[in-house]
Amino acid sequence: MRTRTKIKGAQAKRMKRSDCPLSCTLDLIGDRWSLLIVRDLLFGRSRYSELAAAGEGIPTNILAQRLKQLEQGGIIERRPSAKPRSRYDYCLTKAGLKLAPAVRALAEWGHSEIAGTRPLPLQARRRK
Amino acid sequence: MRTRTKIKGAQAKRMKRSDCPLSCTLDLIGDRWSLLIVRDLLFGRSRYSELAAAGEGIPTNILAQRLKQLEQGGIIERRPSAKPRSRYDYCLTKAGLKLAPAVRALAEWGHSEIAGTRPLPLQARRRK
Repeated sequence: MRTRTKIKGAQAKRMKRSDCPLSCTLDLIGDRWSLLIVRDLLFGRSRYSELAAAGEGIPTNILAQRLKQLEQGGIIERRPSAKPRSRYDYCLTKAGLKLAPAVRALAEWGHSEIAGTRPLPLQARRRK
Repeated sequence: MRTRTKIKGAQAKRMKRSDCPLSCTLDLIGDRWSLLIVRDLLFGRSRYSELAAAGEGIPTNILAQRLKQLEQGGIIERRPSAKPRSRYDYCLTKAGLKLAPAVRALAEWGHSEIAGTRPLPLQARRRK
């Protein structure tokens, strides 16, 4: 099972800039959108349409591309949906769930340092 | 003094996608390079040449652009250098220093989840 081993796919190797763990993390999620998708999955969103409806107005081509990258990076999983009108459900892998402290730290920094931000109630939901 | 108030410059407003603190943080540092510069400043690097020599091989045009963005975002400060052969010294502002927990959380995730990464000894140095 992918989530039980460290991420070591061809994708990760191809993009690797150094053996610094911060650099390798940013190779996977160092952009303006990926962690917003992780945030929404932590909050229990699971459908493509729910992720597309995020307040930041993510363009659908970027959403589709980021979902693919996050899946290849072992951070999210796509499953056939049990819900009507939805083809797939997206959820965080065990590795993806472990991004919660980083998401929280970045959000806390933003709320502390950037004017006009609301606090983010970060309570990760359990995987179903 | 800029670092005593929240970041609220024109730059931040122009780029703001929502009032989510994570989104606003990623508006400022959501890319593959900015937090690597923060990492190096946390480790006590301060010269442009030292930052350019990071193991990830940051292109100098990107380094110059990111330094400018980080300065506009209130995360770093540029000062006339006291050292020979260096025009400016860069250092983290108080707001920038507060990114240390987020840098640590992202690095810990990488070391835990990505194969072939070394641990990052994260000890932020004091500002001089």
